[in-house]
Amino acid sequence: MLTAEIIAIGSELLTPDKTDTNSLWLTEKLNEIGIEVKLKTVVGDDAARLEETIRDALKRSDVVVSTGGLGPTEDDLTRVVSARAAVRELIYREDLEADLRERFRRWGREMPEINKRQAYILEGAEVLPNPNGSAVGMLLETGAAAAAASAEQGKFHVILPGPPRELKPMFEKYVLPKLAARAGDVFVRRRILRVAGMGESAVDEKIAPVYRKYANPQTTILFNRSEIEIHLTAQGKTEAEANALIEEVAAQIIEVLGVAVFATNGEKMEEIVGRLLTASGKTLSLAESCTGGLIAQRLTEISGSSKYFIEGVVAYANEAKIRSLNVAPEIIEKHGAVSAPVAEAMAAGIRARTQTDYAVSVTGIAGPTGGSEEKPVGLVFIGYADANETRSLKIILPGDRELVRWRDSQTALEYLWRKILKTTDSI
Amino acid sequence: MLTAEIIAIGSELLTPDKTDTNSLWLTEKLNEIGIEVKLKTVVGDDAARLEETIRDALKRSDVVVSTGGLGPTEDDLTRVVSARAAVRELIYREDLEADLRERFRRWGREMPEINKRQAYILEGAEVLPNPNGSAVGMLLETGAAAAAASAEQGKFHVILPGPPRELKPMFEKYVLPKLAARAGDVFVRRRILRVAGMGESAVDEKIAPVYRKYANPQTTILFNRSEIEIHLTAQGKTEAEANALIEEVAAQIIEVLGVAVFATNGEKMEEIVGRLLTASGKTLSLAESCTGGLIAQRLTEISGSSKYFIEGVVAYANEAKIRSLNVAPEIIEKHGAVSAPVAEAMAAGIRARTQTDYAVSVTGIAGPTGGSEEKPVGLVFIGYADANETRSLKIILPGDRELVRWRDSQTALEYLWRKILKTTDSI
Repeated sequence: MLTAEIIAIGSELLTPDKTDTNSLWLTEKLNEIGIEVKLKTVVGDDAARLEETIRDALKRSDVVVSTGGLGPTEDDLTRVVSARAAVRELIYREDLEADLRERFRRWGREMPEINKRQAYILEGAEVLPNPNGSAVGMLLETGAAAAAASAEQGKFHVILPGPPRELKPMFEKYVLPKLAARAGDVFVRRRILRVAGMGESAVDEKIAPVYRKYANPQTTILFNRSEIEIHLTAQGKTEAEANALIEEVAAQIIEVLGVAVFATNGEKMEEIVGRLLTASGKTLSLAESCTGGLIAQRLTEISGSSKYFIEGVVAYANEAKIRSLNVAPEIIEKHGAVSAPVAEAMAAGIRARTQTDYAVSVTGIAGPTGGSEEKPVGLVFIGYADANETRSLKIILPGDRELVRWRDSQTALEYLWRKILKTTDSI
Repeated sequence: MLTAEIIAIGSELLTPDKTDTNSLWLTEKLNEIGIEVKLKTVVGDDAARLEETIRDALKRSDVVVSTGGLGPTEDDLTRVVSARAAVRELIYREDLEADLRERFRRWGREMPEINKRQAYILEGAEVLPNPNGSAVGMLLETGAAAAAASAEQGKFHVILPGPPRELKPMFEKYVLPKLAARAGDVFVRRRILRVAGMGESAVDEKIAPVYRKYANPQTTILFNRSEIEIHLTAQGKTEAEANALIEEVAAQIIEVLGVAVFATNGEKMEEIVGRLLTASGKTLSLAESCTGGLIAQRLTEISGSSKYFIEGVVAYANEAKIRSLNVAPEIIEKHGAVSAPVAEAMAAGIRARTQTDYAVSVTGIAGPTGGSEEKPVGLVFIGYADANETRSLKIILPGDRELVRWRDSQTALEYLWRKILKTTDSI
């Protein structure tokens, strides 16, 4: 399998506000033709570090793609430094300058003299036209001459401008076909399984006997705020082969972990719940206190959720719980707003008013203030009501306000999911 | 000025879906104490490349910070490879294992044997406690012995876990003070101004005459989903000097842009609105359709919001609008659910029920489906009601479902903000 590195060039990408997103798109395109990205670097307008980065990349990887630093100003170092790293001359191309002058003329402007810099290319490089900007790209096959004389293959050194609307069409039109031809028949496919209610180590202990048998697909276990993700990446000579390899391992993992695997293809919990509700034709309402609308927001992020999600109430104040959810004031007085009886009354109350099949409620202490010894920050009660029962679940979740709220919402959706599985035949 | 490199470790960061965001936060913190980030690398769970990356970084830079790869599983290579790159032994620490066993016991679980790996640290490294996870961090001063014998200073090799909520407190508590002491008297301060209702070019045209006069602070204009941000970065020999430089330019920018600057210190719109409501002792309720709880969620993300945010209704279905917001069925029938009269009826309805000072509503078409020629995807009506008036605002916002919903929520908060400014004396 061919390996690639991506180098994003530009000091602005080393500030706290900017992140290199070109590499995500490039990674996707490279993965699709079976080329694996092994390293990404962000380097500023710093000649020494840039040269070392490019040189190391060319040594290690079959494909090196750089983005940015092809502008006309002094801090655009990519041309000069790439030539040095690849041990090539920079060649002045009169035709490129003439072309640039002509384009400026068409834009109604005189070409500034500094743009002459953009008429220099690495010796032996193929010029990649740029209809959307003034910087041409370059594709250099290093060791190509040597490769012709032997069985060894050359390496690809691809130099692209930084703006997405310039690099994307250039890469797709001129670079991808050549890389695909060299990569040959390699297809990479990925799949994400999501697991609820288990820790990272527990998942690993259970599934290690499965994934250790396979070098392909690769298995990675990740913890993602409130759930475990299992990433499977397989390569095959055909798409069907790659898919079959993933299927083989995924099936064994699902067998080992059982119902803890709630998503077999990267779905979020709100999608899974939505799918179950759609399949069974059932409806849902919500009463949220500490999550403040987060569960409603997650559910309605799914297109088509209007079919099953009828209404949500964000009852932050006690008066709202009493007025809109019909919670008896005595219950709040006796047990406090964060308690099992209030969670259950909230769920029953919203369900009675909306006449939905299911109702879920959340009341808890998200922090950072409002906690006590008896009721600490992170304490939450999830309420549930359907035609047959009204229940609640008490949990204490660690984290800051944002994370507690996220985990509360995830636990509530997970609780609902388990209840739906029990009350329908949809699995 | 000291230089730093950041290495993000983990194969998942080399997929098309995941991006390293820890480095943005780390960059901000390093910049604040006058340390410049010169290079960022993302490397997968690949021992050879990781070792080369760490070794090169230690050669080039004064401070090397790695994040991730400290978990208990086999693909967590950071400990082993960092030791090799720094030419140190890995030392087993009985006390760390005992501590970990005790923590698992408190979580009500037996420590899986694989977690023993997390009790190994680099010889000579300071252990950085992790109250939020099982992986301790490490801080190694390389060349410290040599440094003591000569005038030369050692280098910092900082090894942090990947999850933000684990690495952030660890870095702030144990690493930053040491780095700050070494960095000496360079203070970098940043300030973000947020602007509503103006485009990027318009802002630039207005404020360029101001910022062009100053090389320090640096001014950057960024577009962030639905608003313009102006970032000011100043450095000084003291904190006071850096702050004074920022203050000087910020004051001029605020004068030029006037009330369009809604936040003078990085605050979000929900914080600004919350502050105004708290100051005036007024209350708010919400009726959301297409935003599905997002506005409620944003408002309640602010600690203390229970004082002014009374209740929100997510009335996704028409029946919910009729039942819970008292919207007359005839209005929906005549104008459609996405219309000015319905937005106004929703705002008036929730306000009448909750008796709050202000009420805001949103109804629109978030997409991707549900649009028509007459009412396209992105069309939204914001409703507003107070004791004196009931109004609405029609807008069409571009973007995908998630972005449309975000922009709807921002526009609604902005509308409310302008109304509060007009109806109170709090500015």
